Amino acid sequence: MYVIGERINGMFKNIGNAILAKDKAPVQEMAEKQLSAGADALDINVGTRVPKSERIAAMEWLVDVVREVTKAPLSIDNPGPSTMRAGLARACVGGGTAIINSTTGRADKLDVFMKLAHEFDAGIVGLSIDENGVAPSADEKLEIGMRIIASAMENDVPIENVFLDPIILPLNVDQAAPGIVLETITQFKMLSDPAPHVVIGLSNLSQGASERPLINRTFLVMAMAAGLDTSIHDPLDDELTNAMVTAELLLNKTIYSNSYLSAYRKSKQME
Amino acid sequence: MYVIGERINGMFKNIGNAILAKDKAPVQEMAEKQLSAGADALDINVGTRVPKSERIAAMEWLVDVVREVTKAPLSIDNPGPSTMRAGLARACVGGGTAIINSTTGRADKLDVFMKLAHEFDAGIVGLSIDENGVAPSADEKLEIGMRIIASAMENDVPIENVFLDPIILPLNVDQAAPGIVLETITQFKMLSDPAPHVVIGLSNLSQGASERPLINRTFLVMAMAAGLDTSIHDPLDDELTNAMVTAELLLNKTIYSNSYLSAYRKSKQME
Repeated sequence: MYVIGERINGMFKNIGNAILAKDKAPVQEMAEKQLSAGADALDINVGTRVPKSERIAAMEWLVDVVREVTKAPLSIDNPGPSTMRAGLARACVGGGTAIINSTTGRADKLDVFMKLAHEFDAGIVGLSIDENGVAPSADEKLEIGMRIIASAMENDVPIENVFLDPIILPLNVDQAAPGIVLETITQFKMLSDPAPHVVIGLSNLSQGASERPLINRTFLVMAMAAGLDTSIHDPLDDELTNAMVTAELLLNKTIYSNSYLSAYRKSKQME
Repeated sequence: MYVIGERINGMFKNIGNAILAKDKAPVQEMAEKQLSAGADALDINVGTRVPKSERIAAMEWLVDVVREVTKAPLSIDNPGPSTMRAGLARACVGGGTAIINSTTGRADKLDVFMKLAHEFDAGIVGLSIDENGVAPSADEKLEIGMRIIASAMENDVPIENVFLDPIILPLNVDQAAPGIVLETITQFKMLSDPAPHVVIGLSNLSQGASERPLINRTFLVMAMAAGLDTSIHDPLDDELTNAMVTAELLLNKTIYSNSYLSAYRKSKQME
């Protein structure tokens, strides 16, 4: 599993405060903590407390601060193309790599972001959203997935850089949605050869629910069995990580040893 | 999920001792504990410490003792037809119901046990084992599954009473096996209409492994997403139960409330 750590986000109070105060330490500590807990990449989101006119500068500052401590891929998490371009440019300085998080399947937006993916040789998350909002059925999600893959091909973005996201809604909003997402994950993996990556923003599932960690880790395991290969989540949730590492073992993607949990953590700390 | 509690088994030291000493209390306590933790049925296995010549009497004693405290279905767990018949007869006294655990797909055994299933209107677990041992591939497991379903039809055993078991081997024996089992579960559910039940003996997966509870609950969730509807396991493992109840929620089989975990437990205690 490819884990994108979600914790550098202005929506979290400590990071939001650090961004406003231009205080590097909390951001850099959070980057390092997530990486040593197993994150392969870090999501970077300035949040909504930064005034719109200062978003670009805030994104540049945030990316620069994280780049001081790691060369890991950075997932630039922002809906606007100017802030996205600024974040990508800083993340890719000196050979760094980035992921665009995210485009939708809306024709205008898709083309702009796919061109950025080509320009920066970046990964790109494509959400199951179009002109009509979040696609509710597996068929509609697939239709948008196909549109995103077609756009990648037109724009010379390799499929290996495409991460399709079926969009998870909160469980307490629509209980039929998780099953539809599982079905969609399996079908996304069959859309092309090589297959696109499939990613979810896991924490959204349990928004507003009790038992959030339990719900998150239970669904992550199910989604992995369906074919999920990437997740944006909190790598500091140890039980989530244990469930994920165990699922990889059961899917025969890593080799069993009695110390497989600590072996995973050690391997990440050595990277 | 239909849970068959695995704990009344002579392989567990306290139950083994109770059987040899004809001491009712530990057996009846274990029956009641499992039922109030959520077991829908109870597996009954006299274990291997009882001499062969006394197996039938031991099974009759064990079933009678459990029947004194519950009318729940009893899963008679024994490979021999005479002990099986004796257990079924006692379990079904006064309108009680039973499950045959288990037959294989071997022609001679299958016919004998399927006739018992018909005679006692019992459920029957059919293992993916034939003359050549445990079927290693999904195709071979399916072939045996079809043979078991055909035998049920010939013997007038309703498909609703058939529980196909793909057989889980210990993870540290064959790491490819869990993935094959997941694939088989999905295919078993498509073998007939109505579909047979699909059951696993979960604990076998983690025999000899470290992190047994974590491995068990992670696989149970994956197997449920693949279509598993019945599990023989330890209902006293609270984290396993929490994972199972959460998986049912995510598969839209129960309705979400903030107190869904305690709601499950309360509903079982009222039964």
